[in-house]
Amino acid sequence: MITATAYAKSPVSQAPRRVSILGSTGSVGCSTLDLIGRDPSHFDVVALTGNSNAELLAQQAVAHDADLAVLADPAGLEDLKSSLSGTSVEAAAGQDALIEAVTRPTDWTMAAIVGSAGLRPTLEAVRQGKSVALANKECLVSAGDIFMEEVAKSGTRLLPVDSEHSAGFQAIDPNASDAIEKITLTASGGPFRTWTQEQMKIATRDDALNHPTWSMGDKLTIDSATLMNKGLELIEAYYLFPVEPEQLNIVIHPQSIVHCLVEYSDGSVLAQLSSPDMRTPIAYSLAWPERMWAPTERLDLAKIGSLDFEAPDYDRFPAPLMAVQALKADNGSTTVLNAANEIAVDAFLKRRIGLPSINALVAETMEAVARDGLSKPKSLEDVLALDALSRTLARTLLQDMI
Amino acid sequence: MITATAYAKSPVSQAPRRVSILGSTGSVGCSTLDLIGRDPSHFDVVALTGNSNAELLAQQAVAHDADLAVLADPAGLEDLKSSLSGTSVEAAAGQDALIEAVTRPTDWTMAAIVGSAGLRPTLEAVRQGKSVALANKECLVSAGDIFMEEVAKSGTRLLPVDSEHSAGFQAIDPNASDAIEKITLTASGGPFRTWTQEQMKIATRDDALNHPTWSMGDKLTIDSATLMNKGLELIEAYYLFPVEPEQLNIVIHPQSIVHCLVEYSDGSVLAQLSSPDMRTPIAYSLAWPERMWAPTERLDLAKIGSLDFEAPDYDRFPAPLMAVQALKADNGSTTVLNAANEIAVDAFLKRRIGLPSINALVAETMEAVARDGLSKPKSLEDVLALDALSRTLARTLLQDMI
Repeated sequence: MITATAYAKSPVSQAPRRVSILGSTGSVGCSTLDLIGRDPSHFDVVALTGNSNAELLAQQAVAHDADLAVLADPAGLEDLKSSLSGTSVEAAAGQDALIEAVTRPTDWTMAAIVGSAGLRPTLEAVRQGKSVALANKECLVSAGDIFMEEVAKSGTRLLPVDSEHSAGFQAIDPNASDAIEKITLTASGGPFRTWTQEQMKIATRDDALNHPTWSMGDKLTIDSATLMNKGLELIEAYYLFPVEPEQLNIVIHPQSIVHCLVEYSDGSVLAQLSSPDMRTPIAYSLAWPERMWAPTERLDLAKIGSLDFEAPDYDRFPAPLMAVQALKADNGSTTVLNAANEIAVDAFLKRRIGLPSINALVAETMEAVARDGLSKPKSLEDVLALDALSRTLARTLLQDMI
Repeated sequence: MITATAYAKSPVSQAPRRVSILGSTGSVGCSTLDLIGRDPSHFDVVALTGNSNAELLAQQAVAHDADLAVLADPAGLEDLKSSLSGTSVEAAAGQDALIEAVTRPTDWTMAAIVGSAGLRPTLEAVRQGKSVALANKECLVSAGDIFMEEVAKSGTRLLPVDSEHSAGFQAIDPNASDAIEKITLTASGGPFRTWTQEQMKIATRDDALNHPTWSMGDKLTIDSATLMNKGLELIEAYYLFPVEPEQLNIVIHPQSIVHCLVEYSDGSVLAQLSSPDMRTPIAYSLAWPERMWAPTERLDLAKIGSLDFEAPDYDRFPAPLMAVQALKADNGSTTVLNAANEIAVDAFLKRRIGLPSINALVAETMEAVARDGLSKPKSLEDVLALDALSRTLARTLLQDMI
């Protein structure tokens, strides 16, 4: 009965939110536009950027009345221009055009460019000092210290888009963040949750791509099968939340309904739950600090019946421990871990190595880089150099392995 | 890594909080003092009140250096005075003294007087316009409209102490309370969760008092066995949260770990979980808007293994539906429901009626009062008169029943 205004702390914003989407042709970008398209009066689309899919980008730009459409790959510029001829949408391509697009004034930018290609544009978006919805993992995993320094300097509001981190963000009591004892990310456990170590040795690419709850890209699915995904997410959580590495945990939760749990000093645990659908965290980031309607399946716990939890088996899945060790080392090891893992997963997807060799190659690469003398990156250039070095070393070690 | 201050919205209060506890000798009162005693520098105890246990009240007042100790029952005044002689604690007794104690300036008052005896003192505490931690159910169940009017008028911050409502309060996103679609309270299901209707007809007092997860008083345990407790909590939730009766739900959750779930329009569900220990919600209310340390068992989901949920069976447990119907009637029916239920539970505890007769007696009383012409209470006096009338009618109907 208490009126909503008795609870509300922020005025409802009336002006449409100016938004740009970096990586609009990818899965997160498409979902973001889907949500914007259902509530167009609240959003004003400034720039959309894609990698190489000129046709889809042009289609999105027209449908959402964007000011500007930019392809990272200059090869598609002519296609883009011809698709947009006769419309009011500007067309451009290439890295400089991409960075120029990022600097166009917005209230909110979705940073959904995948991989290390997203580093520079996302950093530029952060420098604008507005809200950045972060779907790119590399910014935090590979360049966390530098990235967060820019976030602090610019006063940007960083809104995590990963379901686990969005959940953590929602479950942090803003008045009591210093009373957090523990943050626990859930992991589905992946397709090998119940496999023995012996069975895992002969796991195939197809076995690994058979993810039980989320549908996502191949790289992410393999990371989920090795739990490296959860390792990378622990690194992200460290940068996003007011905790030390020791306060971060994971728990296996096969149903992927509870996404993150935040435990406080009074014994309370706040958690966010939802059906596994990326539109929920995207909608949360789009409407923050308010909320908007999203067309997702509502949770029916009585129908689900049971939410199961078990401790992770780090003998079979050492990746999360490797990630936390890399984080604690505080010397650029997370950059190496991420780079080596990409090479290893690619080799597994190409059936060149077996599943357990993914972790082995990551570990060997980290040792090799450390032997060469590792020092903490001080700039984005340092990060990119360390990333490149790690990939080279990983490729060399891979040759010895196969 | 983000510093806690980047999240914090409120300054940490430095001055000790002045607190009074109405009903300090009861279970909630004792737990409140236990928490205060572990962190004495943050609290300054003003008044402690009890019903008749002079010895315990005096002991508490001395241990916590209270200014004043008051017994509701004047018969214990001499005992109280002699126990407190030679100390600086004032002693008093009787209703006027109790109300005088409530009006002593405080920052926070725990309203933990059980039953309708708590109505007047709690209302007086609310009139002071500070923070009131509400553990008394009758204020909302029996006099919700009048009580909430006083809360609004005085600007009091009401902090629910029931585990379910504290959970709801913690899970409400203060920026998005207008985006709430649904609030779900969990119910353990009580000892008869798996009993058939036939078995329930011959359930005994001892069967009913065998509660699976919470340890509490007899009345509350029987209410939990009939799910009337959840019905009363739905009424409370209506008054505490920005929702309509249609948005309130219950789900059976035998482990009593998840206490309340709040579902938003973006598909997110925020929930509060904790081990079943009243010190967690009490600590939350004591430290609000910050949090304090509480000596409760921390949640270990991997050890618990599974959280189960099922839909309530309203054929066997009609009480929550009766409560929501009473709420929707908006004519004083919740006062009648509560009064009749007290008479019925007392009769069951005295082995005068069987378990299914509790609901039957409540339903018959509600019908009988309605036949006499029910009108919505406009004052506390109206509520008390309706409560008394309902009890008289329930007792008469009980005679016909046995």
